[in-house]
Amino acid sequence: MFFHRQELQFKASPERPDAVYARKLQEVLGGQYGEITVAMQYMFQGWNMHVPGKYRDLVFGIGSEEFGHVEMLATMIARLLEKAPLGITKDAVQEDPTVAAVIGGTDVQHAIVAGAGVRPVDSMGNPWQGTYITASGNLLADFTANANAEMQGRVQVARLYHMTDDHGVRDLLAFLLARDTAHQNQWMAAAAELREKGIEDYPVPSNFPQSKEHAEVSYQYLNFSDGKQAGHGPWASGTTPDGKGEFSYYDGPTTSAPMPPPTHPDARFYGTTDLPNVVEKVAGSVQDKLKKE
Amino acid sequence: MFFHRQELQFKASPERPDAVYARKLQEVLGGQYGEITVAMQYMFQGWNMHVPGKYRDLVFGIGSEEFGHVEMLATMIARLLEKAPLGITKDAVQEDPTVAAVIGGTDVQHAIVAGAGVRPVDSMGNPWQGTYITASGNLLADFTANANAEMQGRVQVARLYHMTDDHGVRDLLAFLLARDTAHQNQWMAAAAELREKGIEDYPVPSNFPQSKEHAEVSYQYLNFSDGKQAGHGPWASGTTPDGKGEFSYYDGPTTSAPMPPPTHPDARFYGTTDLPNVVEKVAGSVQDKLKKE
Amino acid sequence: MFFHRQELQFKASPERPDAVYARKLQEVLGGQYGEITVAMQYMFQGWNMHVPGKYRDLVFGIGSEEFGHVEMLATMIARLLEKAPLGITKDAVQEDPTVAAVIGGTDVQHAIVAGAGVRPVDSMGNPWQGTYITASGNLLADFTANANAEMQGRVQVARLYHMTDDHGVRDLLAFLLARDTAHQNQWMAAAAELREKGIEDYPVPSNFPQSKEHAEVSYQYLNFSDGKQAGHGPWASGTTPDGKGEFSYYDGPTTSAPMPPPTHPDARFYGTTDLPNVVEKVAGSVQDKLKKE
Amino acid sequence: MFFHRQELQFKASPERPDAVYARKLQEVLGGQYGEITVAMQYMFQGWNMHVPGKYRDLVFGIGSEEFGHVEMLATMIARLLEKAPLGITKDAVQEDPTVAAVIGGTDVQHAIVAGAGVRPVDSMGNPWQGTYITASGNLLADFTANANAEMQGRVQVARLYHMTDDHGVRDLLAFLLARDTAHQNQWMAAAAELREKGIEDYPVPSNFPQSKEHAEVSYQYLNFSDGKQAGHGPWASGTTPDGKGEFSYYDGPTTSAPMPPPTHPDARFYGTTDLPNVVEKVAGSVQDKLKKE
Amino acid sequence: MFFHRQELQFKASPERPDAVYARKLQEVLGGQYGEITVAMQYMFQGWNMHVPGKYRDLVFGIGSEEFGHVEMLATMIARLLEKAPLGITKDAVQEDPTVAAVIGGTDVQHAIVAGAGVRPVDSMGNPWQGTYITASGNLLADFTANANAEMQGRVQVARLYHMTDDHGVRDLLAFLLARDTAHQNQWMAAAAELREKGIEDYPVPSNFPQSKEHAEVSYQYLNFSDGKQAGHGPWASGTTPDGKGEFSYYDGPTTSAPMPPPTHPDARFYGTTDLPNVVEKVAGSVQDKLKKE
Amino acid sequence: MFFHRQELQFKASPERPDAVYARKLQEVLGGQYGEITVAMQYMFQGWNMHVPGKYRDLVFGIGSEEFGHVEMLATMIARLLEKAPLGITKDAVQEDPTVAAVIGGTDVQHAIVAGAGVRPVDSMGNPWQGTYITASGNLLADFTANANAEMQGRVQVARLYHMTDDHGVRDLLAFLLARDTAHQNQWMAAAAELREKGIEDYPVPSNFPQSKEHAEVSYQYLNFSDGKQAGHGPWASGTTPDGKGEFSYYDGPTTSAPMPPPTHPDARFYGTTDLPNVVEKVAGSVQDKLKKE
Repeated sequence: MFFHRQELQFKASPERPDAVYARKLQEVLGGQYGEITVAMQYMFQGWNMHVPGKYRDLVFGIGSEEFGHVEMLATMIARLLEKAPLGITKDAVQEDPTVAAVIGGTDVQHAIVAGAGVRPVDSMGNPWQGTYITASGNLLADFTANANAEMQGRVQVARLYHMTDDHGVRDLLAFLLARDTAHQNQWMAAAAELREKGIEDYPVPSNFPQSKEHAEVSYQYLNFSDGKQAGHGPWASGTTPDGKGEFSYYDGPTTSAPMPPPTHPDARFYGTTDLPNVVEKVAGSVQDKLKKE
Repeated sequence: MFFHRQELQFKASPERPDAVYARKLQEVLGGQYGEITVAMQYMFQGWNMHVPGKYRDLVFGIGSEEFGHVEMLATMIARLLEKAPLGITKDAVQEDPTVAAVIGGTDVQHAIVAGAGVRPVDSMGNPWQGTYITASGNLLADFTANANAEMQGRVQVARLYHMTDDHGVRDLLAFLLARDTAHQNQWMAAAAELREKGIEDYPVPSNFPQSKEHAEVSYQYLNFSDGKQAGHGPWASGTTPDGKGEFSYYDGPTTSAPMPPPTHPDARFYGTTDLPNVVEKVAGSVQDKLKKE
Repeated sequence: MFFHRQELQFKASPERPDAVYARKLQEVLGGQYGEITVAMQYMFQGWNMHVPGKYRDLVFGIGSEEFGHVEMLATMIARLLEKAPLGITKDAVQEDPTVAAVIGGTDVQHAIVAGAGVRPVDSMGNPWQGTYITASGNLLADFTANANAEMQGRVQVARLYHMTDDHGVRDLLAFLLARDTAHQNQWMAAAAELREKGIEDYPVPSNFPQSKEHAEVSYQYLNFSDGKQAGHGPWASGTTPDGKGEFSYYDGPTTSAPMPPPTHPDARFYGTTDLPNVVEKVAGSVQDKLKKE
Repeated sequence: MFFHRQELQFKASPERPDAVYARKLQEVLGGQYGEITVAMQYMFQGWNMHVPGKYRDLVFGIGSEEFGHVEMLATMIARLLEKAPLGITKDAVQEDPTVAAVIGGTDVQHAIVAGAGVRPVDSMGNPWQGTYITASGNLLADFTANANAEMQGRVQVARLYHMTDDHGVRDLLAFLLARDTAHQNQWMAAAAELREKGIEDYPVPSNFPQSKEHAEVSYQYLNFSDGKQAGHGPWASGTTPDGKGEFSYYDGPTTSAPMPPPTHPDARFYGTTDLPNVVEKVAGSVQDKLKKE
Repeated sequence: MFFHRQELQFKASPERPDAVYARKLQEVLGGQYGEITVAMQYMFQGWNMHVPGKYRDLVFGIGSEEFGHVEMLATMIARLLEKAPLGITKDAVQEDPTVAAVIGGTDVQHAIVAGAGVRPVDSMGNPWQGTYITASGNLLADFTANANAEMQGRVQVARLYHMTDDHGVRDLLAFLLARDTAHQNQWMAAAAELREKGIEDYPVPSNFPQSKEHAEVSYQYLNFSDGKQAGHGPWASGTTPDGKGEFSYYDGPTTSAPMPPPTHPDARFYGTTDLPNVVEKVAGSVQDKLKKE
Repeated sequence: MFFHRQELQFKASPERPDAVYARKLQEVLGGQYGEITVAMQYMFQGWNMHVPGKYRDLVFGIGSEEFGHVEMLATMIARLLEKAPLGITKDAVQEDPTVAAVIGGTDVQHAIVAGAGVRPVDSMGNPWQGTYITASGNLLADFTANANAEMQGRVQVARLYHMTDDHGVRDLLAFLLARDTAHQNQWMAAAAELREKGIEDYPVPSNFPQSKEHAEVSYQYLNFSDGKQAGHGPWASGTTPDGKGEFSYYDGPTTSAPMPPPTHPDARFYGTTDLPNVVEKVAGSVQDKLKKE
């Protein structure tokens, strides 16, 4: 169960309207790595969790905070839009290039659909979607996904920080950057503990018996491009991070198999197949000949 | 430039047809974490790379291999479908429950759209899409995304391994599992090197001046759920993974701001606002009264 | 801010595993009118609200409950999947038609992607998306959208009720049906109050001056089909629900305008336009003639 | 069957080109609540109708008109684009900020893909999609959906009215506003009749036996937020709109169930489960010890 | 304007219910090449047409027929579903494998969302979307798109013909196959006339001055794969179909350019760039040293 | 297998930054008819090919080249973005209309998500998706799809050519235009050969026995619009392109069937049906009466 309190975790008060920036801010609300994504991702991980106790408490604890971040950004976006010119003016808006310039950069659905309100979309207007989230049930994989999400998110917030000089907006971003720092570190700490305690390990999933995989290629770097320096990194020689092998380097593949012949499905799929047609053609031309004779 | 060779990296030869399994295998071809995703993700990272040399060589080298994995899986799926019952039979297919059971589990577009061919979709028929990939230009974030993709992918292949006993299919999966092992390790090795060499560090992006973030909450674990054990992990006390702080634990938020008042945009957005209406209503009823008198 | 409590509003305990039903239940979790939709819709309406006080309290109050419904359904789905056959068996699953029949009806991503976990998708595997929600800022329109969402949702839950005889599942659905009854009534009560208090009225938006619309067609029923009984309803005669007009009935349109001539954009769009081509063609054939001579 | 007549229901003649406005107008053509949506929605309701006679005639009658509205808007958009600057100019377009401002606000696919033509998308370029429509077979639910669609649509057209001062465009919008007024009223009249005649009633679906739902919570307002005024509306006390109950108000839930324990699916899904790992780990370390000895 | 007549162009009467087939039939209603696609495609081409007269009459004439095909298929699907088992039965449906098999192959939204009704989706449940259509304004390109659409559609209907032995269904498909034959031929006839009359020609767009393209590679076949027979077709030697060149064959590219150096955007995008980091790192370690001293 | 070479097929060097144009160029990279589409389409056709030899060599040969075109465009876009103003400036960007104008026209995800990098999307920011491609297994249909894709693509590149005067960009477009010329011709040459050799013919699929279709309507032009000139083209009279019939012209349909009665599904779908309700209502009121007595 969720309980809502009509307070924000941090103030969301812009100094002045800015509809173009409001549109940009949608990215970290409703984008691939926005707050809706992390909120939903952590909660779904909780609902799919197979371990009671602290790991489930962790994903629920952070996930619920993220819903509050959705609220802070939604509030900020609505306030940035409140008094901004959004296309409704006394006369034809397009005639003044200055205003038109601003309008050009807005999410026009902010005005037409939401009436100067926030939308569940990214900065290009793509609706948020369920495919943005990851909840596999494997905690080392999922905590890595979470660390990535917080990294990508923090990079985006850092970029947005430099796209405005509104102190109110920057203040909220400074808060979000700090929380991203916290969460990024937390997922890495949690992932490390999973390995230390032997609950899960590299390569994920560590329980799958590696004896069943084609172990001869498990630690080879096969370079399918012609970049000469690809062999000079820790991915091409030395002990592997999972501690179970040694990297080796090869230009291109170490294995190969001939391309199998094309498939010939049932003729009633009406794909183009050679033999039937040829047979038919031959039969047809024989018939034609007979007719002519 | 890409050059194609009509050979496979590993043989893709099923023992027998299996249209239901072909549909499942679509997940690791065209799903969120399928081979199309990693192939495209690594190449876009290469095209967005800001560093010449070994890192770019690395993403190009692995990315190009992954396109070959797309090809192996596509070939396997087409062969699994080749002789499988796909709904085209002499008589009404639905009358035989055994056949219907099989048909029920297939991707019916395999038959209707592709004529017993492979499709650029996941195991539920959702088309592959560009939002599955990540290429931010920040290498530590992106290599973490790559490690996650290889982990999720290897988990899925491991699950699929147990959903068939076709030795030909399992042989290909055993090869893919090994390559996932290799790539998973390689991205972690590359990420580690970025940190060791100081090219990038935690928290990502490490260049953003942390002095600008609200540092008082940068290492707090704020528990917005009521799970009692959430404070008993390495994410709630001890040195943080970035080495720059100490975790502390709190039940709920340490900061708060009042919910701002609602916005009142231009009346011509026809949102519901209280005051104007009341004023209007009052004015209206006065007019009405006057008219009646 | 949202606070999560590790309790459910109602128990989510199936009597037995049922993966096919789990997939069906996804509809009211992640479908167009599922619980994610209503939860997000009401919260976005709150963030876009222009009126302080009871209406905003109302959408926040119900919206937050709906997030708890998401949790109950997610929990139920995960439990329905826990021990269900999902394709992982000792031998080839497809050989047993009974099992295959069950597998055929499942969401195969439940197994492959989520490892017997719930997913943010509908019953056909389409991911939840932001376009499912409505938050225009106009409360009479939005409360009507809410009433519709609760009606569609209750119809779907009622249908699902008859698709299982698991008492545990039915018990949860009986709870959800009751809450849908409550919410459906609440949105209608709230909508009625908006009209009674003159805050908003039909036609929505009531503030737009109707003098500006083409009033001659504002209350006409224009029948563009040939159904003979279309004129025999309260939509074709009598006073209109907004109390501002009388319906009248017409076979087909009462107005008409000639189709305008085709557009002729800049030739460098390379669309097919007649005149330029003809001119060019004529010029070309003249040149050809001259050359030949 | 549909028959097309090369006439418009109302003239679609802008005074002057305006590509930025053309893009905005796409919303009411191809957006969530645009004309394609209502046209398709009413026709699908007709094809899914279970009642012969006047209700089917009604949805067919209005649905067919809406396809004509699609045509009027498509024509208007093409004409707004005909002579507008769309990026094709003698010299580099971006150098002149005035022109660039206009270009900035356009749908660039109008130029690149459609050659100054209309597109089946909304104002942010998202393609129209089938999920926008509703046709459940329950007429009271569906007519409520229709009323909502006409309300949202009329709000959007009213907003667009103030975003231009082109008299030709406004003239068409004035016509559409009037038709929206008509249709909005008609769906409400039809919905009211369904209730009056006892064909369907609140709560929808009225045939589902309410004795089967958890009636103790059917008319409770459970406030999951802390807004103090949520209890002061007609949704929290008094007779319910369906006439079958009395609303009562509660702070938070009136029921509760403990969160069930996490699920433990088959180990071959490679989710993270505690016990197996611990067992394995213990077994492993015992083995290690034995080996060392 | 469109006028609807409550008649079908051909009867849509199945012999018996078949929900699995109903789901398959959705492909040619709401799929990439289904009837909604061609109906919308031809009408949008009409609205984007730049030529008055017979070509516009042609696209309107066929487009309007296609909306009637949508109606026939929608009617057929609803009737196939009418009495079919769709999951609602007295007892638990999954216990009977025969019924379960059938249920497994259905579109479960047919039951849950539409109440045994048709849906605007394809055979895998993906909603129809605007990106399926093509209307560029260039008639030779668009008529080729139309020919392709009718070919793909006819292939799909032919496949579906063999997936049922219901005479009523086959009768309707036989009608649609004939109309596809007609339309396929018509678009090719129209395309041929465009070339004959010099209105448009190959390469499309023929008005673009070929002198501006890199003519040295305009008729080369560059084989980027290693298939030995690729040079033995009419695409590798002989006169080109546009009559303007001779094909020539090459193994691989005839041109090449060095890969440009990586980009170095503004540092505040926080991408990973080498030099700044090294500089910073050096500066940092110098500072560290100084501090320590 | 694919091998990558770190060279471009043609140089991708803009004269100067241009973020607005970079966004436009995304269309031919990641749009419906962009290079990702043709690359993927031809490769999937190869993997679904049922004929060994030259046709498969052909699709592999061209498909692999197209991946190199993806790379050239991706490189060009990244370079156009490298030094362009993308919203990160010393002070508030929106205050300068000249800069704002430019920003207004950009893909803001270029900056926020990709850090001045290229994205797998079209010019309106819609992600590339698998539904853009066609691979039916029928070669005459698919080669027609390919010809269409190359035509639409060349039209778009020609339009883009006039939207810039950057010689570096135009040089690359001139190269792509030439390759589109080549490929457009090649698919037509290949399609023609299929017909000449009798491998496939019109109407596609030519193997389906036309005796089974309703031949009486196979060559009729049925005009469902009222355009008077629709009968004056080669699609309305004369021999049909497949050489198997004569076109004939009709105003409207030549066949008709009554609209079937509405369906009446199981009452537990809670659709609105007339009779059951009336019966139930009557029964109910009788019961009510009895109770009262």
